[in-house]
Amino acid sequence: MIFLLGASGFVGQSFEKELRHRGWPFASHSRERIDYARFEILLKLLRETKPGFLINAAGYTGKPNVDACETARADTLQGNTLLPLTIAHACAAVGVPWGHVSSGCIYAGAGIMENGQRRIEKDLTQPRLKQLAETNPGAICGYAEIDEPNFSFRRPPSSFYSGTKALAEEAIAGIGQSYLWRLRLPFDEFDHPRNYLTKLQRYPKVYDNVNSLSHLGDYARACLDLWERRAPWGTYNVTNPGHVTTRQVVALIQRILRPGRAFEFWASDAEFYQVAVKTPRSNCVLDSAKLQAAGVQIRPIQDALVDALKKWIPSTP
Amino acid sequence: MIFLLGASGFVGQSFEKELRHRGWPFASHSRERIDYARFEILLKLLRETKPGFLINAAGYTGKPNVDACETARADTLQGNTLLPLTIAHACAAVGVPWGHVSSGCIYAGAGIMENGQRRIEKDLTQPRLKQLAETNPGAICGYAEIDEPNFSFRRPPSSFYSGTKALAEEAIAGIGQSYLWRLRLPFDEFDHPRNYLTKLQRYPKVYDNVNSLSHLGDYARACLDLWERRAPWGTYNVTNPGHVTTRQVVALIQRILRPGRAFEFWASDAEFYQVAVKTPRSNCVLDSAKLQAAGVQIRPIQDALVDALKKWIPSTP
Repeated sequence: MIFLLGASGFVGQSFEKELRHRGWPFASHSRERIDYARFEILLKLLRETKPGFLINAAGYTGKPNVDACETARADTLQGNTLLPLTIAHACAAVGVPWGHVSSGCIYAGAGIMENGQRRIEKDLTQPRLKQLAETNPGAICGYAEIDEPNFSFRRPPSSFYSGTKALAEEAIAGIGQSYLWRLRLPFDEFDHPRNYLTKLQRYPKVYDNVNSLSHLGDYARACLDLWERRAPWGTYNVTNPGHVTTRQVVALIQRILRPGRAFEFWASDAEFYQVAVKTPRSNCVLDSAKLQAAGVQIRPIQDALVDALKKWIPSTP
Repeated sequence: MIFLLGASGFVGQSFEKELRHRGWPFASHSRERIDYARFEILLKLLRETKPGFLINAAGYTGKPNVDACETARADTLQGNTLLPLTIAHACAAVGVPWGHVSSGCIYAGAGIMENGQRRIEKDLTQPRLKQLAETNPGAICGYAEIDEPNFSFRRPPSSFYSGTKALAEEAIAGIGQSYLWRLRLPFDEFDHPRNYLTKLQRYPKVYDNVNSLSHLGDYARACLDLWERRAPWGTYNVTNPGHVTTRQVVALIQRILRPGRAFEFWASDAEFYQVAVKTPRSNCVLDSAKLQAAGVQIRPIQDALVDALKKWIPSTP
């Protein structure tokens, strides 16, 4: 029996779908029914029912976006740091293995291969990196799991949200038997306010940058594959291999969805940060080689994007 | 057997002294020897040795002052929120009762009695309140434990430090058997960078305000008294009854220590916040009636101040 916490959320639903698809027995828990954020309640539940595995897909992301986390500090810390720590403790006390939906947004930038050397660049907003992404994408390499997060409370500036996600990783690491599954800019074919493809289509103006992304279905499948294969505990970048610029994704939207409108881009990062948002955004390239080395198959990002757009289901307004 | 965590710190030492004075068996733990911030290490220690009580006097206060916590966010959260939560979980899992050194700095202001009604004022910087403190101190009443913290992440503005202390209270409350002992501006006769009386003597300029204070020896004694008397679990303001203005404390220093120098005060709160510090300071009056109703004796603040100053031991430079 698998326990799924945060089952009603955007990421939780994709786990629920994948678990159902596999026919694995699972129990979905949402906080409306049981307050699993209370240590003693969760401990009792785990002691009594002893699940074989637990998934934490709950978290606090801020509405309408991550800017909201700058002011909702207590809720952001509760949902993204204290809750996973509470789960880690309860699981460790009872001996339940588990996986946590972490985030790749604790990094900014990418690595560049130069003369066979890997060099890390925090600021992917540099025109040179965007140019590289268009002209020599192979020169851009992603952060590996051994690279220390560089968009966090320990490495400011970061958003408050990213700070709480990075702190959770630091706090949980090494407790009990656990996976930290890093998700990054999730998308699929279902129109949803948290779907990256929906967001891009709704922004009045688009911010061009270079990123790795996670197809949500691929993500849930890869996470469960890690557990099914009994891959070593620890942190995994669960992103579709490769990276894309926002302009490339917009070009795919234009080509496949034919929305019949032009997309406007912010003239510069400076303009974007002055006008559009309150807190810095993580834009980063992640390396998913560890995931693949564990034997988990995952499509290249271009394939996953084209597939989602070809199957695109607009939400009825 | 009592476990004392953070025994080497400023507050930990006063507990150690009081425990020794009482002849109660105790074991001091410092993180240099055992990493009790790691859940599984602490859990194993508690399961193996099953102490009768545990005291958490560890925390992260920032050096040289609370401004440092604004940038050291991860350490401030680790020390003041995640560590107490970890201890709460381990103690609850094993059934060990414990007490946590919390802080009164999660409030700002005081209550005023007006026509028999208690009215809460967040901004004690108002000249009227300082005037009241000098002319009609009985009209000022303190925050009780049932009053929600109003200098916290949930009630900004606050300092980052205060935010982490308030969040810890919120996260711990109701887990297992625990005391939250609120300390406020600790002082005693021993010259020390964290002693309020030392600080006042070292500031180039003094910031006048109205506060409750905790004599450190009285504090440790009262906390252990609560446990000894098996007072109900929960939160207690452990401050010496009453309140003082900074000018009143400086007047006592002048009268008793005769430092042979004048003290200069910031002309206004505006000047203080513009020139002297980065983050807002908590200044507040707390009501210690609950502590006293539990049968714990504690001296009025004036008596404790005069006593500390009469026994004052300057540190050798």
